[in-house]
Amino acid sequence: MFTDYRGITHLKSMDVEQLKKLSDDIRQEIINCVSKNGGHLASSLGAVELAVALHYVFNSPYDSIIWDVGHQAYAHKLLTGRDLSLLRKKGGVSGFPKPEESKHDHFIAGHAGVSVSEAAGLAKMHPENFSIAVIGDGSMTNGMVYEAMNHAGSMKLKNLIVVLNDNDMSISENVGAISAFISKNIINNAYYQKVRAEIKSMIASFPLQKTFNINLVELVKKIRSSAVSLIAPEAFFEAFGFRYIGPFDGHDIEVLVKAFRNIPAEDEDSSPILLHLVTKKGKGYAYAEDDPSLFHGISCFDAATGKSETKKATPTFTSIFGDAVCELAEKDKNIVVVTAAMKEGTGLEKFESKFKERFYDVGIAEQHAVTFAAGLAKSGAKPMVAIYSTFIQRSFDQLIHDAALNKLNIVFCLDRAGVVGEDGATHHGVFDLSFIRCIPGVTIMAPSSSRELKKMLEYAVNKCEGPVFIRYPRGCVPEWEYDNGGSEVKLEEIQDKRSRIIFENNHSKDHLTIFAAGYSAYVAMTAAKEFCKEFPGVPIRVYDSRFIKPLDRDSILDELSQSFGIITIEENALCGGFGSAVLELICDSGVKYGKQIKRLGIGDAFVGHAGQNELRIDQGVDVEAVKNAIKSILEQRI
Amino acid sequence: MFTDYRGITHLKSMDVEQLKKLSDDIRQEIINCVSKNGGHLASSLGAVELAVALHYVFNSPYDSIIWDVGHQAYAHKLLTGRDLSLLRKKGGVSGFPKPEESKHDHFIAGHAGVSVSEAAGLAKMHPENFSIAVIGDGSMTNGMVYEAMNHAGSMKLKNLIVVLNDNDMSISENVGAISAFISKNIINNAYYQKVRAEIKSMIASFPLQKTFNINLVELVKKIRSSAVSLIAPEAFFEAFGFRYIGPFDGHDIEVLVKAFRNIPAEDEDSSPILLHLVTKKGKGYAYAEDDPSLFHGISCFDAATGKSETKKATPTFTSIFGDAVCELAEKDKNIVVVTAAMKEGTGLEKFESKFKERFYDVGIAEQHAVTFAAGLAKSGAKPMVAIYSTFIQRSFDQLIHDAALNKLNIVFCLDRAGVVGEDGATHHGVFDLSFIRCIPGVTIMAPSSSRELKKMLEYAVNKCEGPVFIRYPRGCVPEWEYDNGGSEVKLEEIQDKRSRIIFENNHSKDHLTIFAAGYSAYVAMTAAKEFCKEFPGVPIRVYDSRFIKPLDRDSILDELSQSFGIITIEENALCGGFGSAVLELICDSGVKYGKQIKRLGIGDAFVGHAGQNELRIDQGVDVEAVKNAIKSILEQRI
Repeated sequence: MFTDYRGITHLKSMDVEQLKKLSDDIRQEIINCVSKNGGHLASSLGAVELAVALHYVFNSPYDSIIWDVGHQAYAHKLLTGRDLSLLRKKGGVSGFPKPEESKHDHFIAGHAGVSVSEAAGLAKMHPENFSIAVIGDGSMTNGMVYEAMNHAGSMKLKNLIVVLNDNDMSISENVGAISAFISKNIINNAYYQKVRAEIKSMIASFPLQKTFNINLVELVKKIRSSAVSLIAPEAFFEAFGFRYIGPFDGHDIEVLVKAFRNIPAEDEDSSPILLHLVTKKGKGYAYAEDDPSLFHGISCFDAATGKSETKKATPTFTSIFGDAVCELAEKDKNIVVVTAAMKEGTGLEKFESKFKERFYDVGIAEQHAVTFAAGLAKSGAKPMVAIYSTFIQRSFDQLIHDAALNKLNIVFCLDRAGVVGEDGATHHGVFDLSFIRCIPGVTIMAPSSSRELKKMLEYAVNKCEGPVFIRYPRGCVPEWEYDNGGSEVKLEEIQDKRSRIIFENNHSKDHLTIFAAGYSAYVAMTAAKEFCKEFPGVPIRVYDSRFIKPLDRDSILDELSQSFGIITIEENALCGGFGSAVLELICDSGVKYGKQIKRLGIGDAFVGHAGQNELRIDQGVDVEAVKNAIKSILEQRI
Repeated sequence: MFTDYRGITHLKSMDVEQLKKLSDDIRQEIINCVSKNGGHLASSLGAVELAVALHYVFNSPYDSIIWDVGHQAYAHKLLTGRDLSLLRKKGGVSGFPKPEESKHDHFIAGHAGVSVSEAAGLAKMHPENFSIAVIGDGSMTNGMVYEAMNHAGSMKLKNLIVVLNDNDMSISENVGAISAFISKNIINNAYYQKVRAEIKSMIASFPLQKTFNINLVELVKKIRSSAVSLIAPEAFFEAFGFRYIGPFDGHDIEVLVKAFRNIPAEDEDSSPILLHLVTKKGKGYAYAEDDPSLFHGISCFDAATGKSETKKATPTFTSIFGDAVCELAEKDKNIVVVTAAMKEGTGLEKFESKFKERFYDVGIAEQHAVTFAAGLAKSGAKPMVAIYSTFIQRSFDQLIHDAALNKLNIVFCLDRAGVVGEDGATHHGVFDLSFIRCIPGVTIMAPSSSRELKKMLEYAVNKCEGPVFIRYPRGCVPEWEYDNGGSEVKLEEIQDKRSRIIFENNHSKDHLTIFAAGYSAYVAMTAAKEFCKEFPGVPIRVYDSRFIKPLDRDSILDELSQSFGIITIEENALCGGFGSAVLELICDSGVKYGKQIKRLGIGDAFVGHAGQNELRIDQGVDVEAVKNAIKSILEQRI
């Protein structure tokens, strides 16, 4: 246990050896806690000495330390007195910075690229303090960082420090030219020193030469080319108005402390500073160093062996998607796949290995991902863009302006739609139905099973016009389709945009109807089954609605004349989501329904972190909630 | 008239003098057409020779020419056979590229920064052709461009050419470090040549010297510093994997043709190319050269004198906002203002001149604008962020993740909400209610008059918690508040989030109710007045709803028991907008209403370009539409 540490005041009086010891203790505590709770291990292990040095030199919270994509921040959390024993669990601390937990956290942060903008705002308002954004090299693929640097540089915020925590890897390996550029300049650090020494010696030795036979043109050429490599990172960041310092070893406490301490003294030219550190993801834990991608975001594992809990045999929506996209691509060479630094998360390793030339990982660059796909689609390719629901929020304008307005055939595969569990508020995909539904000319589907997902993908790629969105949740596909509850899916049903009846009890012309979207169809069916076991006489019909846009108008209007009550259920915000679409359809149809409609979905508040099913219960989109809604409608009827 | 030109095939056989003459003719035609129709004059005049040279050298549409923010593209439109005599008018050509008009347009484009992504997609799919993105230096403040360059550079797309059309000005003057960086390197072009010559002469002269008294260290220092300035742009774009060429005079046809022709030959290292041109905004029309900002987007003017039609005395929502924000800022020094390259468009010239230190124009960088404001708000400032409705789509994730999730007090002033008229599909602000309404913890208001706008701003800045959105349309505030139809607005009403009754006829316990949002309140009231003149006995009550979130629950529920029918009206998509919110409230209240509800708003299709009021009629959000809805409800009742 991590017990002998007494906060950042205590830290200030430590000597270097004590700081090293402290870093080791922190590292051990992180490994312990993440092994028990799951979490973001590799990034946080790479930022232990950095967190210690920052808190040692600067005065948090007056000097503000902003962790870009907060999963580097576990050491910071420990240093600022938080207990990680219930990390990411219900009631435990969040896996990301969270101001409610500590005054040392200034913003909730789970999406990449926001730290420089935030830190610039703080730096401007508090010129007497330092404002420090710690950003991974992966986030340097994100456009927002350049917007922020461009502005911060022009404001000459000399109290702004951007710490580039460079481990040459974001969630998957890094992509893009900038990454190569940065790496080259690190790898060449030895070369850098050598060249500098050579130039010096050339200059020094010159006057000693006896003759003029030195080729001065060659000398100048050599110096110029050396200068290019010497000044490359400086020139790059200077273009944004930043002063570049580095690269330094991000695991050497002494070096870090010295670098941070020197900043105030060196700062004469009033520009913000980019301080370049080289770190190792997973540092100090051999298993994570060897496979940082596996240990990026990981569930519980055995700290001694590095082995994860065995995965269940049941496939996930993600794995089904990964397989299906390979099958489709084998049949159709026009299919290409675009992802934004989420190859593993969206299940595309297999696709990449089979179709390397048709796979584009654009980095943490969701805006470009969508518009690049628009360019591909315009040229006749069939792009499938795999992005988490929460991250497609970054491309909202591109969905409207580049994909939909241009009527391009692009298939958007939105993984992690609905509540995601432990990653919490920044990562739930509970808005997509609301913000995508208003875009003209798009199709939105939500599969309730693996069979549905496969057919929807097939339909989307081969038959659908304009942008298509398929949204599916994190985790295993429901077990129901492996028993006789799951029926075969026909492509024509999807093509005709029809919903399907997945449960019916005691059919009568006067029944209760449930319209359910996606995973919630499984929930609704289970609830109806259970309810009807208890009350066999109640006539209930459950629809797997499949399409959120366009709705299956005929079925819904038919049900209006036959139902004594309607329930809708979805894992999306009730504001503007699927249930809202059903209300719009009913209203605009002119039918004066005048009976109970109950909408189940995510309420109008941000959802915190806890287990996925715990959150479903909290949000009233679980089996019990449906049963209660049924009861409530029956009671009001009586 | 522009009659003697017969398309781009004809162009290929011209000599330089003919190309120059053609450019002059095109320039004159653009001036004529824009003077009659209004439009984007200055940018398009700056890109005449560029368009001619591109079409002369390349083979459009096989080689694709993508104009970033299409308002540079009028010369391109003329060259590809389009008639600008009805530019931007209903039935005339669009002010932006539009594939439906011509095979030479590949994408609809009205938002900045998308061209490199689009061109990269085309370049990847058509390796045998060139793909050319023409991008203004203003767009270089937009993060998406860096995402695209990073990816394109890593793909080594040697058939991708990015033409940086550098006129040192976006819509307002340019902001940011990059702009300064680029300008410095142009302004120093003469210096650049001089330094190069100096180095050469130093080297050449050296062996002739008789003694060793030259200070070689100084020489090397000088060469190094020269090298820095020599390689700065190269180093910058090389970091993104691009080869930098330029700068060239973008108005010299010969130079342009030579530069474009040399590209294939020079290309040995398989990287995409950034070709840097220097142009003058408004080139060739003295009035526009003198005041390019005025002639950026302009309504009709006299071509001979450059004088615009005299503006009407009636203030616009924009000007009311501009004045109000100054008044508020005088009373409260914590108020700061952020805009994204839209100082003039959002009416902030006065604020900037009065409160320079509290004004931030961040460039075309809407993502950073929002998150930077979050940083300011976190530090106790009261940021007001003025952005067009259509451009806030770019910041959707930042609204959720940085503003709302962190519960920060930021006032978003969304100008150009609703249909905007001639700018067309890319610029209408008809989705904001739908996509913002689903964000937890935000407040959304829509003023129907200048008095409402002022009070809403006062309330938002002083009394409201969390992010607040105030959305208002382009154009003049309705005249009604200058007659006795406008009543005084009390701050308490706004503070209590109450709607207000703005029309009532023949009050009875059984009436027809209209709930109207924003400008549509004026429309609804006018319609009700006119209707009741004709049919004095009909009891109608019209609400200016003021709040879209939260809705005035009490008034709506009261009306449910008193109305025989309800109409909602808004200038926003019916999908998920204000009317949808009213349906949700009614449904979730448990009241079984069972009577007619008619929702008026923007239908589920993109809206084209035409006059603002023409579009209101097309979309059924005008006075006649409301009268028809009233009639329809009355008829169904009988």
